[in-house]
Amino acid sequence: MARKTTLDLVNECDNFPYRYDDVKTYDHAVSAYYSFKLNGCPSTLGYVTPNIAGRLPLDKHWSVDHVNHTLMFQPQNASTLEQRNAILAEYLQQVRQQHVFKVLDGWRDELYPIYGPNRELILSMERSASALFGVVTYGVHMTAYVASDSEGGMKIWAPRRAETKQTYPGMMDNTVAGGLSTGEEPLECLIRECEEEASIPENIARQAKACGTLTYFHIRDARAGGETELCQPECQYVYDLKLPSDFVPKPGDDEAIDFRLLSIAEVQEALADGKFKPNCALLLVEFLIRHGFLTPEGEPDYIDIVSRLHRKMEFPLR
Amino acid sequence: MARKTTLDLVNECDNFPYRYDDVKTYDHAVSAYYSFKLNGCPSTLGYVTPNIAGRLPLDKHWSVDHVNHTLMFQPQNASTLEQRNAILAEYLQQVRQQHVFKVLDGWRDELYPIYGPNRELILSMERSASALFGVVTYGVHMTAYVASDSEGGMKIWAPRRAETKQTYPGMMDNTVAGGLSTGEEPLECLIRECEEEASIPENIARQAKACGTLTYFHIRDARAGGETELCQPECQYVYDLKLPSDFVPKPGDDEAIDFRLLSIAEVQEALADGKFKPNCALLLVEFLIRHGFLTPEGEPDYIDIVSRLHRKMEFPLR
Repeated sequence: MARKTTLDLVNECDNFPYRYDDVKTYDHAVSAYYSFKLNGCPSTLGYVTPNIAGRLPLDKHWSVDHVNHTLMFQPQNASTLEQRNAILAEYLQQVRQQHVFKVLDGWRDELYPIYGPNRELILSMERSASALFGVVTYGVHMTAYVASDSEGGMKIWAPRRAETKQTYPGMMDNTVAGGLSTGEEPLECLIRECEEEASIPENIARQAKACGTLTYFHIRDARAGGETELCQPECQYVYDLKLPSDFVPKPGDDEAIDFRLLSIAEVQEALADGKFKPNCALLLVEFLIRHGFLTPEGEPDYIDIVSRLHRKMEFPLR
Repeated sequence: MARKTTLDLVNECDNFPYRYDDVKTYDHAVSAYYSFKLNGCPSTLGYVTPNIAGRLPLDKHWSVDHVNHTLMFQPQNASTLEQRNAILAEYLQQVRQQHVFKVLDGWRDELYPIYGPNRELILSMERSASALFGVVTYGVHMTAYVASDSEGGMKIWAPRRAETKQTYPGMMDNTVAGGLSTGEEPLECLIRECEEEASIPENIARQAKACGTLTYFHIRDARAGGETELCQPECQYVYDLKLPSDFVPKPGDDEAIDFRLLSIAEVQEALADGKFKPNCALLLVEFLIRHGFLTPEGEPDYIDIVSRLHRKMEFPLR
């Protein structure tokens, strides 16, 4: 198997075209998708594949324009956020029961927030449906490390995903990662996930350091499960946590099989071998750059990669 | 004086419009500029204001298309990089002697590199001319800090620029910053500037940690000196250096008056008061985010700011 370069890892995750790279390719891609809109909000909130737009059951709360490629959610008799959310929830439950889309088989019973152009919360949507509508989702990703005498001065805790996971079974993961539900703040989400995924108690999790965000625009392939070609623009809040050297993370739920403590060289080896889940690979690339393990002299695509890790989105963000 | 928010600081430096924010504003801005091109290279290398494009003395090595807003450098009988550079150097010397452009009064006798779409060096240009042609310039910016008992656990060394500097006189600066000349590697440049600007010896400077890049697209105002509205897309290699607490940086040249050791609160105060040179403010914002002093919970524009610090450029980069 060919070893992946750092840019390969970036390309695999942030794989929606850029307009600056090639106007035609970008415009072609964008015009192929349907813009997901909420009645009354001028912004496009996500991109929907023609396949999904064509198969979505329509009722009075929805309209689709096949000329202008627009899918509009227009909840009737709904003047509040709560009313819009209720109509959407009921609708998605019906679609789920009709087994129209495979991704809804992964129903999570968890609401994800969608924001308008002024960062106001305008809708909440069942997590498993977010990729159908191509809306931006938010999460937290944390790298826990310990001081070490090995080269680089640190080792990183990396879990392996359970073989039973719906998405990316068996691949390596970031120490802790999770999605931000409606109403949840990033640090609060991180503390919850630290406990759930790695049995890291709150007093230690609170020492995690916010280090920025990772933003990328992913087009899903078969490994993500369910329909392919779905748009998945994501924003991850990035955290570092230096753990005491005698602390061993333990899976707190069924997400991970086990945690292994990897040297920087071992992390780089696993990255090059494609063993990490694509967005977790991206987070580790960001970690390696931020901690000086990848350098301008050693990484030919340094400038490009750093921009790609922090993509500016065409959708309103949190 | 109104205190600046973090987003104000970003907007002041990265002030070229974004297409995603407003297609019309962006397209209007871009179509107003002339594309600077090199004959034989398909990429636009920089943006030139109509004022500059109209006043640039033309000879056989130049052509300007006022319909398509293109300024083309087409060096005659030049098949090598060296020949192109020689023709450009001779031309710019003539323009300098004719006193056509004020920015050339700040002649530096230092060559800056321009790259093509495959990261190949395709031209070198006198530093003071780079803003005339709106080409991307490269530099290194370093924040030196010491461990401290003060809130935040560190203090930052910040110099004040001499009142006699051509650009941004009297403003505060990053500990060490400098431009990357043709042929120079970032770390090599950093080590040179550490010695020149802050009397930091090589053995200490080599401990600096590469932490990524800062990319932004600035439109110059009067504070930069010379013509205004010039395009200045820049890429800065970012470094952190933890200094021993008893080491005191000293101005090694006439760039800085003195260095002061500021607490994180004092840095934030000086930023809000607009005391830092705009791109140095941006670097400190990136530092404050990366070190967890600005957080998702405390900074409302967090996601937007992080993307803005790492702008993807429409020009080929190093």
